Amino acid sequence: MLKSRLSLAEYQSGIRNGDTFVLAQAITLVESTLPQDRQLADQLLTTILPFTGNSIRLGITGIPGVGKSTFIEAFGKYITKLNKKLAVLTVDPSSQLTKGSILGDKTRMEELSRNNLAFIRPSSSGSAMGGVTLTTREAILLCEASGYEVIVVETVGVGQSEVAIKNMVDFFLLLMLPGAGDELQGLKKGIIEMADALVITKADGENIKKAREAQAEYQHALHLLPSSSNGSRINVLTCSAVANEGIDSIWSMINSHIITIKESGFFHQNREQQNIHWFHDCFNNLLSQDISLLDRLAKSKRTLEDRVRRKEIPVRTAAREMLDIYHEVLRGSKS
Amino acid sequence: MLKSRLSLAEYQSGIRNGDTFVLAQAITLVESTLPQDRQLADQLLTTILPFTGNSIRLGITGIPGVGKSTFIEAFGKYITKLNKKLAVLTVDPSSQLTKGSILGDKTRMEELSRNNLAFIRPSSSGSAMGGVTLTTREAILLCEASGYEVIVVETVGVGQSEVAIKNMVDFFLLLMLPGAGDELQGLKKGIIEMADALVITKADGENIKKAREAQAEYQHALHLLPSSSNGSRINVLTCSAVANEGIDSIWSMINSHIITIKESGFFHQNREQQNIHWFHDCFNNLLSQDISLLDRLAKSKRTLEDRVRRKEIPVRTAAREMLDIYHEVLRGSKS
Repeated sequence: MLKSRLSLAEYQSGIRNGDTFVLAQAITLVESTLPQDRQLADQLLTTILPFTGNSIRLGITGIPGVGKSTFIEAFGKYITKLNKKLAVLTVDPSSQLTKGSILGDKTRMEELSRNNLAFIRPSSSGSAMGGVTLTTREAILLCEASGYEVIVVETVGVGQSEVAIKNMVDFFLLLMLPGAGDELQGLKKGIIEMADALVITKADGENIKKAREAQAEYQHALHLLPSSSNGSRINVLTCSAVANEGIDSIWSMINSHIITIKESGFFHQNREQQNIHWFHDCFNNLLSQDISLLDRLAKSKRTLEDRVRRKEIPVRTAAREMLDIYHEVLRGSKS
Repeated sequence: MLKSRLSLAEYQSGIRNGDTFVLAQAITLVESTLPQDRQLADQLLTTILPFTGNSIRLGITGIPGVGKSTFIEAFGKYITKLNKKLAVLTVDPSSQLTKGSILGDKTRMEELSRNNLAFIRPSSSGSAMGGVTLTTREAILLCEASGYEVIVVETVGVGQSEVAIKNMVDFFLLLMLPGAGDELQGLKKGIIEMADALVITKADGENIKKAREAQAEYQHALHLLPSSSNGSRINVLTCSAVANEGIDSIWSMINSHIITIKESGFFHQNREQQNIHWFHDCFNNLLSQDISLLDRLAKSKRTLEDRVRRKEIPVRTAAREMLDIYHEVLRGSKS
C-alpha cells in the first residue's frame, strides 16, 4: 500500500533520471499486491522495457556468517570506484518469518549505502506465494532502466531461493568460509554445482593458510564434478574484504567470463531462456494463486490429500477430481 | 489401445494371483491415454490400493556403458535366490525419440527375464506430456499388489528423469565406472548428490586397482558435500557383476539402510511426502495437459512468448493475459 502515489509520468522520468527515491518507490509499487498498484506497475514496466537489459546481473550466496555484507560492501566500493553504478537487491525467503532477518541489522553495508553510485534494497517481506523472486526480477529491470550497470542479487545459502536466483543472473558466486568441509553442512544440496565461481572469504591473518588449503581442496573436488552449463570450469578464488585483497581478481574473472559468454552467444541465449522460463513461472504462479484463492478448491485439495494419505483414492483419480472441481468453479463464476 | 480387453474382475484376480500376463496387460492399461482405458485403470487402481506399499523401491541410474543391465541381472539373480520376487521397471525419457533405446537390445537381462520370480517391463514410449513417470508410479503399485517385494526402477543417467525417480523410490543407487573423474562429464549435474549410494561397477581383472582408487576419490569428494536428506552419508561400494562380487554387500547395505529409516520414521514420512508430491505433480500435469489441448491458448502462448522475446510486453503482463484467455476459454466451453 503506497502512501504517496506518484503518477506514471513521474515514475518514468524519475527512474530514467536516476532518482533513487523514485526508484525505491517503484520497487515498492511492483511489490504491491493491490490491483490498482499492479495495473500501474504493469504500465510502468511496459514503458521502461526498452531501457532494460544493459547490466551485469550477479548472484551472490553463502551461509550466514560467511561475510556476505562485508564482501558486497568491499566489492561495491571497488565497482563504484570504477565509476560504475551498482545496485544490491536482497532475496530473503525467510523474511516472512523473521521480518527481514538479513537486513534487520541496520549497520549492514553502511559505507556503501552512503555512496551516491550505489543503491541498496532489501526484499519485500509482504509479498506472498513465492512472489518474492518474481518481484525481484522486476526490481532488476527498474534498476537497469535507472542506469545501474552491475546488479547484485544477494540471498542466503540455506533456502529454496538459489535456483530462482540462478535463473535470473548472468553469473552466480558462492561465498565459502576457509576450513573446507564442515561448514558445507549448512549448504543446500546442489548449490555448489550451480555456482560459476567459489570465493573463499576471510583469507587474511591466521586464515590465509586455511583459505589456500580450502581452495586446493575445492579445486580438486570440483574437478570430479561436471562442468557448468556454459561448458566452463568453476573457478575457486580467495579474498579478504577487510584487507581489500582479491576483489580486483574476482571482478576481472567475472568480466572475462561475461565477455566469453557474450562472444559465444550463451549470454544472450541464457537471458532469453530465463525470460521464457520466467513467463512460464509467472503463469504458473498466477494460476496457483488463482486456484488457492478459490475457497471451495482449497477445501477439496485438503480433503483429497487426506484421502490420498489414507490410501482411499488413487493419486491420479484425486488429481482428476481436483481439476474437475476447478473447472466447475470457474464455469459457475460466469453467472 | 488394448487389443484384448480384460474385465475389472479379471485384472484384479490376475494381479492378486501373480499372473504376469495380466500384470503386463494392466501396466499397458494404465499407460493408455484412451478415456475408457483410463476409467478402467482408475477403478483397478482403487481396488488394488490396499495391497500396495509392501516393497523396497529401488532406483538405479548411471550413464550408458556403466553396465546397468549386467548389474541388474546379477542383482536380480541374487534377490530371487533369496526367494524374493523382483520387478524391474524402466523409465527411458529418450524412448520417444529412439523407440526404446534402453531395451531395444533383446538380449538384455536374458537370464533374469526367464526367471519365474522376476518381472521385467520396459517403459511405454507412447505416453505423452511427461506422463511416463506418472505411469511408472502406477506400475509400481500394480507390481506390489502382485506380490513383488523388490522393485527396481531403472533409468539412464543423462536425462531429466532422475529427480522424478528419486521421488518415487526408497533408495537411489548411482552406478559409476572405475577411473574417477572423466566419465562424470556425461552425468547431469546434481545426480551424485541425489544418490543414497555410489557403486563402482566392473571392479574385476585389471580394473580392480582403478576401482579402488575411484572409491577412495569419491569417498573423499563426497566428504565435502552435504549429507543426504535423511542425514546419512553416501556410501561408495565396488562390485563386479561378471565375477559376482560385491552384490551381497550392496544388498545388505540397502537392507540396513531401509531398517534404519523405518525405525527413524523417515521411510513412512518420505513415502507420504512422495504421495502428496505425486498428487500435486499429477494435478499440474493434468492442468497443463488441459491447457495445451486448448488450441486457442496454445496459439496465444506462442504469440506471448514472441512478444516477451521482443521485449514488447512485460513478463507478468503476458502471464496475466494468458490466464485471462484460459478463463475465457473455459467459461465459453460451458455453452
